[in-house]
Amino acid sequence: MAARKSASKNKNKNKNKKVRVALVQMACIDKPDQNVKKALERIGKAAKAGAQIVCLQELFRSRYFCQSEDDAQFELAESIPGPTSKALAKAAAQHKIALVGSIFERRAQGLYHNTAVIFNERGEMAGKYRKMHIPDDPRYYEKFFFTPGDAEPGFFATATAAAKIGTLICWDQWYPEAARLTALAGAQILFYPTAIGWHKEDVKDIRIAQADAWELIQRSHALSNGCFVCAVNRVGTEDGLTFWGGSFVADPFGRIIAKASADKEEILYAECDLDSIDSTRRHWPFLRDRRVDAYGGILKRYGQS
Amino acid sequence: MAARKSASKNKNKNKNKKVRVALVQMACIDKPDQNVKKALERIGKAAKAGAQIVCLQELFRSRYFCQSEDDAQFELAESIPGPTSKALAKAAAQHKIALVGSIFERRAQGLYHNTAVIFNERGEMAGKYRKMHIPDDPRYYEKFFFTPGDAEPGFFATATAAAKIGTLICWDQWYPEAARLTALAGAQILFYPTAIGWHKEDVKDIRIAQADAWELIQRSHALSNGCFVCAVNRVGTEDGLTFWGGSFVADPFGRIIAKASADKEEILYAECDLDSIDSTRRHWPFLRDRRVDAYGGILKRYGQS
Repeated sequence: MAARKSASKNKNKNKNKKVRVALVQMACIDKPDQNVKKALERIGKAAKAGAQIVCLQELFRSRYFCQSEDDAQFELAESIPGPTSKALAKAAAQHKIALVGSIFERRAQGLYHNTAVIFNERGEMAGKYRKMHIPDDPRYYEKFFFTPGDAEPGFFATATAAAKIGTLICWDQWYPEAARLTALAGAQILFYPTAIGWHKEDVKDIRIAQADAWELIQRSHALSNGCFVCAVNRVGTEDGLTFWGGSFVADPFGRIIAKASADKEEILYAECDLDSIDSTRRHWPFLRDRRVDAYGGILKRYGQS
Repeated sequence: MAARKSASKNKNKNKNKKVRVALVQMACIDKPDQNVKKALERIGKAAKAGAQIVCLQELFRSRYFCQSEDDAQFELAESIPGPTSKALAKAAAQHKIALVGSIFERRAQGLYHNTAVIFNERGEMAGKYRKMHIPDDPRYYEKFFFTPGDAEPGFFATATAAAKIGTLICWDQWYPEAARLTALAGAQILFYPTAIGWHKEDVKDIRIAQADAWELIQRSHALSNGCFVCAVNRVGTEDGLTFWGGSFVADPFGRIIAKASADKEEILYAECDLDSIDSTRRHWPFLRDRRVDAYGGILKRYGQS
């Protein structure tokens, strides 16, 4: 019995796997090329610091252009593959990292998406996620710009050398369904490139409540699914919006293990111990008991209709 | 235009509705009659203090008997209607309150449930919820005692004079699907009668992490659904388990508006402004954008299988 126990222990030891992630929290200016240049530099810096997976913030190439319904902004969009996705692919291959980028995608004339691209360590595009939940609020006129994702399945995980990862984008953050489906697809780490900020009219209490809520909902996805969550937000003020940064990594029990400032550009690093997904899910076995026979109403808009 | 605006304002004013809830956080002893007597006294006290809806903790009639697989404990079970449910019905009618109780239900010989009963202000049973997610962990051997709920729909809301309410029980807390379905059924307030505590072996950091996680996940249900959440936990030490109390009420933005101690018996009161559900959901319109066309995988256990 002692031998068996020892063997079991060795087996666990062998699969022990810690993954170093880096989240690039930036401010953006009105010159896309310079934003891309800055992002590429920081990707390189993160890789040198040992990052195996790097994630950029939402729409890092430009200022957050959805603050008004200005059709001139469609000029920012690019095809995939296109200049930015090619630059990211090259960076991933050069640094031998997995890389999650965010692109304003021109899919066809008059058809645009808010898209995350996932490159593996060989620089191959391993996944392309088109934002499924599109917000539309004052200063976030995204329904004007982006068609919601329509792939099947809409939510998925992507294998990289370091971990199986899932990518969701900003407004998706508020939907437990999106996190659940991505985790059920096998994602060990969920990445949320984001652009969220305070209106200049918001008073302090409202600002705190909003940032708290944003953190809370994403920590809850880590907890309910027993996986890591990485949220990557921008900083800086663009017109009336001040992006609140606060990029963070939550562990499978929903605890924050790394957190960036609210107002500074930085690269946030964290070690994600993939074995802790096993141990957390064994002790809090939520996946064991899901009532898949009784969740049919999730596919309804409201009530039975 | 001014007149129309005024009319709209008055209309809002007319439907303004604040509901006073009371959560009864108790310790329980090995004498069921005395536990019931205590609960009934506190229901009366809460009603006198203006409570319109009162919720008791999970299995308030007894000590938490699931710490071992002791079949003698089945003797605690009662039919519904039975002595305890009748006493609760009488209390609801007497005090003209809505009342959520928790009963170890004997449905048939050898068939038992962990059941919440919802009485309206006339003392009529307006709803009966059989716990859908059943835990099974050391000291929480609930799968030995309780058959999972099998009603259709499994998750529902119940109309009372004060509000439309939903009831879920303890382990259900960890499932966003349960909260979502109950909110989509129209619940404005979710009640979670609970019995959760620390093992005596748990070190301080683990205790804090567990209680934080418990609070976090339920606050996230309030937030993602834009409704109120009331969690009602017991206190006191029973064998090796110390129940951590901490009953609380969260508003539709996930903020805690009332919270009880970790170790004292008390009645926790809160005002739930049902109009704030409108305003919260208008400003953070998560229900607007759910991708019901893309959530099919929620009905799968894992991946596509």
